[in-house]
Amino acid sequence: MMETALQLIQERKFMELARLLKTQNAADIAVLLGEVDEATLPLVYRILPKELAAETFVEMEPEQQELLIRSFSDRELREMLDELFLDDTVDIIEEMPAGVVKRILKNSDVQTRRSINEILQYPEDSAGTIMTIEYVDLKRDMTVVQAFDRIRRTGYDKETIYDCYVTDASRKLLGLVTVRTLLLSSPDCIIGDIMDTNIVSVGTHDDQEYVAHQFEKYDLLAIPVVDTENRLVGIVTFDDAMDVIQEENTEDIEIMGGMTPSEKTYLRSTSLDLFRHRIPWLLLLMVSATFTGMIITGFESALAVQVVLTAFIPMLMDTGGNSGSQSSVTIIRALSLGEIEFSDLASVVWKEIRAAVLCGTVLAAACFVKIMLIDRLLMGNTDVTVLVAAVVCVTMALTVLVAKIIGCILPMTAKKMGFDPAVMASPFITTIVDAISLLVYFGIAHLLLF
Amino acid sequence: MMETALQLIQERKFMELARLLKTQNAADIAVLLGEVDEATLPLVYRILPKELAAETFVEMEPEQQELLIRSFSDRELREMLDELFLDDTVDIIEEMPAGVVKRILKNSDVQTRRSINEILQYPEDSAGTIMTIEYVDLKRDMTVVQAFDRIRRTGYDKETIYDCYVTDASRKLLGLVTVRTLLLSSPDCIIGDIMDTNIVSVGTHDDQEYVAHQFEKYDLLAIPVVDTENRLVGIVTFDDAMDVIQEENTEDIEIMGGMTPSEKTYLRSTSLDLFRHRIPWLLLLMVSATFTGMIITGFESALAVQVVLTAFIPMLMDTGGNSGSQSSVTIIRALSLGEIEFSDLASVVWKEIRAAVLCGTVLAAACFVKIMLIDRLLMGNTDVTVLVAAVVCVTMALTVLVAKIIGCILPMTAKKMGFDPAVMASPFITTIVDAISLLVYFGIAHLLLF
Repeated sequence: MMETALQLIQERKFMELARLLKTQNAADIAVLLGEVDEATLPLVYRILPKELAAETFVEMEPEQQELLIRSFSDRELREMLDELFLDDTVDIIEEMPAGVVKRILKNSDVQTRRSINEILQYPEDSAGTIMTIEYVDLKRDMTVVQAFDRIRRTGYDKETIYDCYVTDASRKLLGLVTVRTLLLSSPDCIIGDIMDTNIVSVGTHDDQEYVAHQFEKYDLLAIPVVDTENRLVGIVTFDDAMDVIQEENTEDIEIMGGMTPSEKTYLRSTSLDLFRHRIPWLLLLMVSATFTGMIITGFESALAVQVVLTAFIPMLMDTGGNSGSQSSVTIIRALSLGEIEFSDLASVVWKEIRAAVLCGTVLAAACFVKIMLIDRLLMGNTDVTVLVAAVVCVTMALTVLVAKIIGCILPMTAKKMGFDPAVMASPFITTIVDAISLLVYFGIAHLLLF
Repeated sequence: MMETALQLIQERKFMELARLLKTQNAADIAVLLGEVDEATLPLVYRILPKELAAETFVEMEPEQQELLIRSFSDRELREMLDELFLDDTVDIIEEMPAGVVKRILKNSDVQTRRSINEILQYPEDSAGTIMTIEYVDLKRDMTVVQAFDRIRRTGYDKETIYDCYVTDASRKLLGLVTVRTLLLSSPDCIIGDIMDTNIVSVGTHDDQEYVAHQFEKYDLLAIPVVDTENRLVGIVTFDDAMDVIQEENTEDIEIMGGMTPSEKTYLRSTSLDLFRHRIPWLLLLMVSATFTGMIITGFESALAVQVVLTAFIPMLMDTGGNSGSQSSVTIIRALSLGEIEFSDLASVVWKEIRAAVLCGTVLAAACFVKIMLIDRLLMGNTDVTVLVAAVVCVTMALTVLVAKIIGCILPMTAKKMGFDPAVMASPFITTIVDAISLLVYFGIAHLLLF
C-alpha cells in the first residue's frame, strides 16, 4: 500500500487516501508518515479517523511527533491526548523538549496531569514508568453478570480487558479473574469464588528487566503493579514487556561490543552520539595496552635475537582473545537469561576447563602442522625450527586454558559484585588475555630457546 | 515456598505438599521438581491435579520430562497428552529420543497423531513448527450471542480465546474479531459486520524470526498462520513469539562471539558440546592469522633495526579490532531490529566515517601524549623518538578509520548476500583489521623512519 499511498499524496488525492488509510494498521501508517515531508505531514495526519490517528501517533518517531504537536491547535492536542493511553502519553513526554511537555501538561485534564506527574517520579526503568493505570477492577462480591456489565461500561478506555483485578475498598489487590474464566463460568457465580488468588505481581520500584522476566517465566498477558502496601496502582501489558526485552538485549549487545549503551536507534544517532558512546572504552583499552607494550619492551633483547618469534604474536593474541570472549559471551548470556548464578561458579569453571583442554589440544596440534607445513616448508622460513613451533603451540594451549577460565570467572564475579556482567565481554577480556599470553610466550621461549 | 516444599518432601508429608502445590504456578513447580531426585520426581508429580500437572510438565527440562514419561503407564501418558496443547506436545517430541517419541505417538489419538506428523514436516524454525492448531473459529453470519455460545462450548481446549478467526466453508481466513469487540458490541450484531478484515497473517513456511517481528511491530496477542491458499491452519501466540525473540537474540550473541549457535542452555551443554560449537571458528581464525604472521615476517629486517616498533603492535591491533567491532556490533543489531537495510549503506558509511575521524583524532592525540609521557619520560625508553610516536599515532588514526568502514560494510553486504550478518562481528573483523593495521604501520614506518 506504501506506493499507492505515496502516489495519492503526490497527486493530492486526499479523499481516496483517507479511504485507503482507514483500513490500515497504525504501525504501517506511521512508516508511511515517516516518508512524507514536513509540510505534508500534518495534512495527511489530519485525514485519519480520530482513534486511528492517536494509535498512529504512538507509533511515530519522536521527531515527527514533535513536528505534529507543534502544528496542532490546543483543541487538536487536547482531542488527541484524550484518545491516548496514559502510558503512551508518558512515553511521549519523556522524549519531548521542555516547551512541548509544558503544552501537553497544560492541555491534559487535572486527573491525567496528576497521574502523569506521579509516574514521572518513579525511578528510571522501573515498573512504575512503564505501567498503565487504565485497567479493569472488579469487587469480590460481584456476580459474573455484574462483572461483564462493568467491563462493558468501563472497558472501552482500557488497554486490556482480558485480565481483571479484584480489589477491596482500600484498593488492595485480592485476586485476578480473566475474561476467559468469566466466559466459561455460569452467569450467577460470585467473583470471589472464581478469582485466582495466587497472583504474580511486581512493585512500582522493581526494575523493568525483572518485570519482563516475569512475563517470560509465567507467560503473562499483563502483570499488576502494586505499591509497598499491596495496593494496585497499575498494570504492565505484554507488548511493553516485549519492548523492554528488546531494549535490554540491545543494551547488553552494545556493552559487550565495548560501547556505553545508547537510547537512540542507529539512524537517529548522530556521528557525535556514536563518538561519545564509543570513545571511553577505546581510550581505556588503548591505555591499558601499555602493559602489553611493556612486556614486549622487557623482552626486546630476546626478540632481537629470535625475531621469528614476533611473527606469531598476533596469532597467539587473537586466538587467546577469541577463546576468552567465547566463554565470556556465553556466560554473560546465561547470566542474563537467569540460567546460571554465582553459586554455579565451580561447576562452570570445571566445564570451561574441560572445554578449554579439548580446544587447546586441537588448536595446538593444528597450529603445529600449520607452522611446519606453511611457514617452514611452503614459505621456506628456516628460522622456524621444531623448537620454535613447540614454543608457539604450548603457549597456545596454555593461553586458551587461561583465557577460558578468566572468561567465565570475570562476568560471574562482576555480577556478584553488583556490576553489569556484560562489561566483561570481549574487549576487556582481550586486553587481559593479551598480556597473559605474551608473558606465557616469553616465559616458555626463555625455557626452551635461550 | 521452595524451602517449605522441599522440607515437606523430605518428611514425606505428601498430603500437606499437595495442598501447598495446588495453589502454585506451573513455572515455579517445575523449578521445584528440578531440585528433587530421580526416584522422588514421579511421586511428587503424581500428587498434582491433572491440569496443573500438564502445565508443569510443559515447563520442565527435557531430561526430566523423559524421566517422567519413562515412569508413566500408557494410561497415565494418554491422560497427560489429552491435557496438553498440540504445540507443546510437538515441542516435547522434538526433544525426546526416538523410543519415547514412538510411545507418545502410539498413545495419541488418530487426529492428534496426524496433526503432529503434519507439523513435524514444516521446515525447522518456520511458523508451522511453532503454531498451535487449537483456536476459536467463527462464521461471518453468526450473531454476537451465537459467537459467545461457540466460544463457551469450544473455548475450554483452546490456548487463547481472545482472538477469534472468521473463516468460510473452505477454511479461508476472512476476518478477525476479538472478544473485546464482542463484549463491546450489542448481542444481535452480525460477526461479518464487526469483524476486522485487515488482518496481519503469516505463512506456514515463514521464518519464526519474521513471525516474532510481526508481534513487535503490531503488538499482537496472536497471529494467524495460513497456507498458500490463505486457508487458516493455526495460530502463534505472543508467549511463543517472546521465546523466539529470546532464542534469536541468544543465537545472534553466540554467533557474534565466534561460536556456532547452540540449542541447549549452558547448564545442559556438556564440555564436548561447548568444544564442538567453539572449535570451528577458533581454527578458522587461527589459520587466517597466517597472513598477519606473513606481514611481520616480510618486515622482519626492518623490525630487527627498530625493535621498539614491535612494542606497539598489540596496542594498534587491539584498538583497531575494538573500533571495528564497535561498528559491526552496532550495525548487526540495527539490521536485526530492522532499523536499517542495505539501501541505507551510503548514509551509514558516511556516519561511520565521521565518527571514525572523531574517534581516530582523539585516540591519536591521547596516544601521542601517552607515548611521550609514559613510554619515553616515565620508563626512560630513549628508542621512543617523536618520529616513532608520530608513526604509531598516524597508524592508529588510519586503522580506526579503516576498521569502522569495514565494520559497517561487511555486515550489510553479508545480509544483502543472504548470509547472517552476525558472522561479521568482532572475531572476523579483528582478523581482517589486524592485517590491515600491520600493513599501514609498516608502510608509514617505511616512509618516515627508513
